[in-house]
Amino acid sequence: MEQWTFLNGGITSAKGFRAAGVEAGVKYANRRDVALIAADVPCVAAGVFTTNLVAAAPVVVDRAKLAACAQAQAIAVNTGCANACTGEQGLIDAQAVAKAAAQALGIDASLVLVSSTGVIGALLPTERVIAGVERAVQALASGAEADEAASCAIMTTDTRPKRAAVQCVIDGKVVTLGGMCKGAGMIEPKMATMLAYVTTDAAVEPAWLQQALKQAADVSFNRVVVDGDESTNDTLVCLANGLAGNRTLSASHPEAAVFLEALKAVCTALAKQIVMDGEGVSKFVTVRVTGARTQEDAHLVARAIARSPLVKTSWFGKDPNWGRVICAAGYSGAEVDERRVRILYGGICAYDCGHVAAEETLAEMQRLMRERAFDVTVELGLGSGEETIYTCDFTFDYVKINAEYTT
Amino acid sequence: MEQWTFLNGGITSAKGFRAAGVEAGVKYANRRDVALIAADVPCVAAGVFTTNLVAAAPVVVDRAKLAACAQAQAIAVNTGCANACTGEQGLIDAQAVAKAAAQALGIDASLVLVSSTGVIGALLPTERVIAGVERAVQALASGAEADEAASCAIMTTDTRPKRAAVQCVIDGKVVTLGGMCKGAGMIEPKMATMLAYVTTDAAVEPAWLQQALKQAADVSFNRVVVDGDESTNDTLVCLANGLAGNRTLSASHPEAAVFLEALKAVCTALAKQIVMDGEGVSKFVTVRVTGARTQEDAHLVARAIARSPLVKTSWFGKDPNWGRVICAAGYSGAEVDERRVRILYGGICAYDCGHVAAEETLAEMQRLMRERAFDVTVELGLGSGEETIYTCDFTFDYVKINAEYTT
Repeated sequence: MEQWTFLNGGITSAKGFRAAGVEAGVKYANRRDVALIAADVPCVAAGVFTTNLVAAAPVVVDRAKLAACAQAQAIAVNTGCANACTGEQGLIDAQAVAKAAAQALGIDASLVLVSSTGVIGALLPTERVIAGVERAVQALASGAEADEAASCAIMTTDTRPKRAAVQCVIDGKVVTLGGMCKGAGMIEPKMATMLAYVTTDAAVEPAWLQQALKQAADVSFNRVVVDGDESTNDTLVCLANGLAGNRTLSASHPEAAVFLEALKAVCTALAKQIVMDGEGVSKFVTVRVTGARTQEDAHLVARAIARSPLVKTSWFGKDPNWGRVICAAGYSGAEVDERRVRILYGGICAYDCGHVAAEETLAEMQRLMRERAFDVTVELGLGSGEETIYTCDFTFDYVKINAEYTT
Repeated sequence: MEQWTFLNGGITSAKGFRAAGVEAGVKYANRRDVALIAADVPCVAAGVFTTNLVAAAPVVVDRAKLAACAQAQAIAVNTGCANACTGEQGLIDAQAVAKAAAQALGIDASLVLVSSTGVIGALLPTERVIAGVERAVQALASGAEADEAASCAIMTTDTRPKRAAVQCVIDGKVVTLGGMCKGAGMIEPKMATMLAYVTTDAAVEPAWLQQALKQAADVSFNRVVVDGDESTNDTLVCLANGLAGNRTLSASHPEAAVFLEALKAVCTALAKQIVMDGEGVSKFVTVRVTGARTQEDAHLVARAIARSPLVKTSWFGKDPNWGRVICAAGYSGAEVDERRVRILYGGICAYDCGHVAAEETLAEMQRLMRERAFDVTVELGLGSGEETIYTCDFTFDYVKINAEYTT
């Protein structure tokens, strides 16, 4: 049984966190595009960032700050411009935003992290972002409205804000974790996601928080695929301010696993929302691979299926074309022997070790595929490697959204 | 200067080859769906096949035949059913088609190769295919009409037949090479293509023909990307009947390079036609990567760009969103330093070592992107590794075609 429960909440659910989202006109008028998260006291901070070698300026800045000292008290986020591929000027701009936020908050600039998302290769309109950050400091608050404002302000092609919160008990104290994220495009599993933030009032030892966050990212944000493109700006940051009053969590704390599972739950709930709200998505598909020779093989097969344009368009068309699924398994690089493979859509077996589905079975599969969410399971029959990836279909709207994004 | 010239021709351009394409009702009425290629005499034969571990029955059969003896005299091809994932029955069916073709032609069954393309996971309607092959034997002919009939009979979602032919002179004798292929979907560079056939009247030593064919595939069919899905049925076969009268070509023949270049020319002409006629394609894009640390790195970058759904949809939208190109380079796995990268669309520089394009430049790029074909060049500035890949955009029609394919 889980030792945590979901709350209806977000980034300010944990004690001692406030947030705001304001309109700063970074790229478009009449939309919230600057968000600020601020803690009442300095927090232990951990981050997981894109592995793309072309990393945006704010990623470079945040990585350096967290490496120097695993502490932070605020995060300033803008949409409309990714501040990526912007050279020296990009770094100067990111630092200027952090400094302005720190001044407005009356804290040290080393305690402010920054994130950007939007078009790659455009310089940050720094003055507008700074003006937005200053207004956001005035607007900082806790509660549902503040959660809503901040989570809306980090949206780009997202159609809805993404929030999650859970509570657990550690050392007899109630510990809360709350988070928000944005997704939509450039979503691929080798990463930490586009932008995601988790706040908690737990007291946590810095090195262990970093470890726990990495583990949580690996089973959540790193297991979603929208389009297979890995962003230059992917960021997952967790701030822990210690106000819950538990003894400091570390690997040796007897209830460390309770916190870890709660952290995984928040991250997984956020990651699934990213897929559900992927660009143009009409189907949420859980791809399960079992019986692989190794875990790595299971991952290769699940990822090849989740990335295949032919598989994804068949899901969109409610087409029980399981042949494309086994085809993707075959070129994934993993060991596959078609005489041992079984493929199931939901509980319906489409292919069983060389035997293909009858016409009636295909009709049954088509009925299943009318659902908004279903599972596709591939049993490889070779070993005990397993993997689960959350993904979606490929639709007209994906093409439309991405053909028209900057112009 | 090239030592070969293009002919207006196809699979029967070389001396001693005939072909036919007939309606056999394999899956749909009123379309040619069985093709036959036959040589007047036994030929030296070489083949390059899919590296997908889930290989279709005809691929398994052809591989075994060519491994046992590098000879063939005829190839029977059906569309409408891939005969893939069909277990033992699939192998029996493929052998039955070869045997029927051999009987109708009065030759040994070991000399007949077979290919299938179409839906994966359905049993071959063998009687219909055999009836088609028998009618095709009656219809065998040389010349433009036969070329047309055969190349139309191997089409699936292709919108037009694909043919090419070249001539060169070896030992003072005119040598002709002619070919045909089909493409459209499941097109990825780790392969030999969907189905491609080249006939030649050159006399060629078997082991060297296999080598030459592999080299030609590597610079042609293995350099095209439509959607990144690698088929279970990819096949490239070359038949050489020796009727041109040249001394047998081998590595030590002084004019071996003339033949090799002519073979590459035919294969490249066919491969480019596959991209041009890719499912829903509106843009043909040549991706060139230079200055990579290694050739392998250049390949990784070119392939990541050619496969990226975000890059491909931006081409469709005539959107000068070069940021997606450098983003794909960054996650490709190759060494990339954004301070040394230059990105050009045609001759227009979008990004130069940390400096981004001005608004006027973006407008210029947009004008270029109205063309049906353009180049995208990425200079990495790290070494001498180079790669060129031929690819295309991602369109509404791609999604439409593939959402509706089997149902």
